[in-house]
Amino acid sequence: MKRIEDFKSIIDRYEVIFFDAFGVLKTHTGLVPGIERTFAYLEAQNKEYYIVTNDASRSPAQLAQSYHNKGLNVVTADRIISSGQLTKDYLELKVEGGYVAYLGTTESAHYIESAGLKTLPVSDINSSNIDQVNALVFMDDEGFNWFEDINKTVNLLRKRTIPAIVANTDYAYPVSNHDVSIAIGGLAQMIETIIGKKFIRFGKPDSQMFMFVYDLIREYRPINKKEIVMVGDTLQTDIMGGNKFGLDTVLVLSGNTLPQDADNRIQATGIVPTYICEHAVIGPQALNL
Amino acid sequence: MKRIEDFKSIIDRYEVIFFDAFGVLKTHTGLVPGIERTFAYLEAQNKEYYIVTNDASRSPAQLAQSYHNKGLNVVTADRIISSGQLTKDYLELKVEGGYVAYLGTTESAHYIESAGLKTLPVSDINSSNIDQVNALVFMDDEGFNWFEDINKTVNLLRKRTIPAIVANTDYAYPVSNHDVSIAIGGLAQMIETIIGKKFIRFGKPDSQMFMFVYDLIREYRPINKKEIVMVGDTLQTDIMGGNKFGLDTVLVLSGNTLPQDADNRIQATGIVPTYICEHAVIGPQALNL
Amino acid sequence: MKRIEDFKSIIDRYEVIFFDAFGVLKTHTGLVPGIERTFAYLEAQNKEYYIVTNDASRSPAQLAQSYHNKGLNVVTADRIISSGQLTKDYLELKVEGGYVAYLGTTESAHYIESAGLKTLPVSDINSSNIDQVNALVFMDDEGFNWFEDINKTVNLLRKRTIPAIVANTDYAYPVSNHDVSIAIGGLAQMIETIIGKKFIRFGKPDSQMFMFVYDLIREYRPINKKEIVMVGDTLQTDIMGGNKFGLDTVLVLSGNTLPQDADNRIQATGIVPTYICEHAVIGPQALNL
Amino acid sequence: MKRIEDFKSIIDRYEVIFFDAFGVLKTHTGLVPGIERTFAYLEAQNKEYYIVTNDASRSPAQLAQSYHNKGLNVVTADRIISSGQLTKDYLELKVEGGYVAYLGTTESAHYIESAGLKTLPVSDINSSNIDQVNALVFMDDEGFNWFEDINKTVNLLRKRTIPAIVANTDYAYPVSNHDVSIAIGGLAQMIETIIGKKFIRFGKPDSQMFMFVYDLIREYRPINKKEIVMVGDTLQTDIMGGNKFGLDTVLVLSGNTLPQDADNRIQATGIVPTYICEHAVIGPQALNL
Repeated sequence: MKRIEDFKSIIDRYEVIFFDAFGVLKTHTGLVPGIERTFAYLEAQNKEYYIVTNDASRSPAQLAQSYHNKGLNVVTADRIISSGQLTKDYLELKVEGGYVAYLGTTESAHYIESAGLKTLPVSDINSSNIDQVNALVFMDDEGFNWFEDINKTVNLLRKRTIPAIVANTDYAYPVSNHDVSIAIGGLAQMIETIIGKKFIRFGKPDSQMFMFVYDLIREYRPINKKEIVMVGDTLQTDIMGGNKFGLDTVLVLSGNTLPQDADNRIQATGIVPTYICEHAVIGPQALNL
Repeated sequence: MKRIEDFKSIIDRYEVIFFDAFGVLKTHTGLVPGIERTFAYLEAQNKEYYIVTNDASRSPAQLAQSYHNKGLNVVTADRIISSGQLTKDYLELKVEGGYVAYLGTTESAHYIESAGLKTLPVSDINSSNIDQVNALVFMDDEGFNWFEDINKTVNLLRKRTIPAIVANTDYAYPVSNHDVSIAIGGLAQMIETIIGKKFIRFGKPDSQMFMFVYDLIREYRPINKKEIVMVGDTLQTDIMGGNKFGLDTVLVLSGNTLPQDADNRIQATGIVPTYICEHAVIGPQALNL
Repeated sequence: MKRIEDFKSIIDRYEVIFFDAFGVLKTHTGLVPGIERTFAYLEAQNKEYYIVTNDASRSPAQLAQSYHNKGLNVVTADRIISSGQLTKDYLELKVEGGYVAYLGTTESAHYIESAGLKTLPVSDINSSNIDQVNALVFMDDEGFNWFEDINKTVNLLRKRTIPAIVANTDYAYPVSNHDVSIAIGGLAQMIETIIGKKFIRFGKPDSQMFMFVYDLIREYRPINKKEIVMVGDTLQTDIMGGNKFGLDTVLVLSGNTLPQDADNRIQATGIVPTYICEHAVIGPQALNL
Repeated sequence: MKRIEDFKSIIDRYEVIFFDAFGVLKTHTGLVPGIERTFAYLEAQNKEYYIVTNDASRSPAQLAQSYHNKGLNVVTADRIISSGQLTKDYLELKVEGGYVAYLGTTESAHYIESAGLKTLPVSDINSSNIDQVNALVFMDDEGFNWFEDINKTVNLLRKRTIPAIVANTDYAYPVSNHDVSIAIGGLAQMIETIIGKKFIRFGKPDSQMFMFVYDLIREYRPINKKEIVMVGDTLQTDIMGGNKFGLDTVLVLSGNTLPQDADNRIQATGIVPTYICEHAVIGPQALNL
């Protein structure tokens, strides 16, 4: 574990950079200041990068649009890999027809539709269609009535022996400087405990997420795991997952892990990043070279 | 473990009978048919009994009234021991002032008020009173907006280092023949997992629940644990708790544990009741004696 | 939560003091220096005290002897309450005959014998006696072959549907300045996970432990929970258990909880002691008064 | 989920068959009777197959030899994929030098040596080499003194912030008709709970295991996940893992899952195989064609 002053030297060492989104590129107040320079440098150096996120609330195109709205125009949809895309792949391979019920916004249902399957919000499940529900997906924490639809989900899974897929494994996410909101992964964990069944989880730290991007890259160029680095702000997802997949990892201190806590948390969890860096921003002078 | 045909023979063997409520005396459709004969026999034989319940949604007086409304007039408030009363005792001993915030109905706040403390529904917490909140109680799953107030509870417990008390440890309860509803114990478990703090739980199987009734009895008569039997429909709460406290236990098959599953579940959990009995109802002929 | 300089002022405020043993009265190197003054003061002030310990490896008489050997002569067996005694009570009430198998030293089997039951070390279980084994007790981490007897225990519990009792809930205990050893509670937790059954646990933080001492006191004098304070070095057992039972609590920093970590751990766990005090030792001048 | 009478029809439907080893090809008494016909048919039909096992106790060559010793000569080392090989890949990518400490037999250390790293049995750790230990691997449950070396492992991981890798995630394995033995995955789980750090686990159901074989195949031929089927006897590892990776799955009833329990366990866990088949053996008549 090395402390690195300048994120530029990380970029210079690797062929491909994987970025977590929240806490690395943006926070609840907007883009991390100066992050546009990092992407300018990546483009200038012809380095490849991917944004690897557990956010399945929107399609890659919508996620890209949200970066453009914030002023980061260089990020395109094909650079964004969401756990929703693994959910889509799973559904395509494993669900043959009928309805896929979901908890989440209409936007999040995009991943189900793109698998060519019929979607059904949990709120619309009734006695006439429940027998055609062949899978349930936990997509997002918004877009439904918690009391009504969480209870309805419990009862769906008690009645039907179908796969339950969690498209975002996070338990909570920040909504302001001081407040968090429970994520769909937290709700899914509660329901799993209550009904005692095993859910299928996609998203970091699960290695299937990293394999997805790795496969994507190998389709157009040869690559070695030694040439990729994963940059993230969360030990349990970004760093744990990157390490396990065999990648070098960078913990940045601009999000979940506070500068004063980093050493303690690394020691307490035993999750050790290859590097620690204050943030993923590079200085203005790097671009002048 | 013995199978007993006639619940009357159980009553005849013990001085005091503890009953679980749901699945033993009543179900979601009303009283267990014939249960009034059991209570008539208890009265005729001068046997003592207590209803020991994890239901903290209403006061003992309101719970007793609900039995009267169903036609079981003999049950009085002093015979009903709810986990809410342990919560009251805890608050009285350990919280010195300020507000006690709660999730639950206005009725469930009874237990906080009876401890002489000021109550504050989680929905009413704001920046001007949050610093006077000295405890949080999970009382009931109704009476609040799940999305708003569950998230608000998470943030309260992140900001304030105060005790969090769970007045009902159940994860779910039946609302119809086929459906269950998540109980406040299930919501509390999710929040405990998300924020990583330790909550204080009252209610079966915790032995403090049994100790409360045992102490109550000892105030007016000598009693030995050998003279008490706990009757319940749930292995993990009623039978586990009764066994651990040193009581004999009866598993009845009128609720949570189905007749065809009883042996498998006893073997799988290792929780062994002293007796198994179909239900806690005694035959009409017993009353004619 | 108040920081208290002088432990004497704690003693002066209460009628009865409960002490945890390890980390409060002694450490792996011997008695906490000066602790004999605390007991001299207790005696001089006619204050009652009990040592409430999860150590079930030896009888109270043997535990008292170990204090005498270290030079603390005032502690007598009747002042020491071990989780082993709750195990004894349980066995007396709930096991009617046959053998009680155990993992632990011969000394730890004392608690089973004193319940009037026949003991059987797990190593002596064979096909001719396994059907007479009516309970299993996890007593201590020493006195048996880990590889042979832990595996034998797993298979006993797969074949026989009998209660499994854990007489010491601790996961590990310190054996030197830098090293710990796995306690029987850690081994029991592994076996419980592997076979999926529910074990019965005695010892702090379980309230049955506190109730046992509380009952003992009430046999010879009236007492109120407000008049008792629990002194311990571990948030999850001593402080959590004391708080839940309704007692005031003192966290001392002479054992498990280091001075520099105390605030962080209280905030992280949400387990708040009534007082924090460096150690349970009182100054020499207090005795001169 | 379909019940299939004849395993031959499964083979006919797929290009590549993944087999679990224990409970599918062999049991504690030897080969599953008739399983050699399945392999004869696979060879005759030019179908590819891999044995995908969580057994990291020996090298693929030694595992192949054990099949030869039992009379199944067709299985070669290159057809056997063990979780040990993922461990090797991880160590190669992520550990740069120093010692890799391990719990397990000398044979199991093969996977560490083949990564070009120096091995150190936990029993040989001492104050002069502990600072050069850069990773710990849980390889196998045999080859060490449980009491001494499990405690030593706990203390190693308390002193050194290094990755801990679990090369076999199983909790227990059968050693006779009636008895099981705790596997290294069970010991690792206990240690992880006690010290509170996060271990890295390889082996089914983790998708990295399936990815490894999938990558291996893609190196020499094009393949689609739809053309692969995973055959296993355990819902939580073989079927869960296969499903999640997007493969069709066959639950066979010759091992962990008993014929009378299959439906209950599928319903209880929510883990649904594509097919259920009594065993992976094909009838003699199939070979005559």
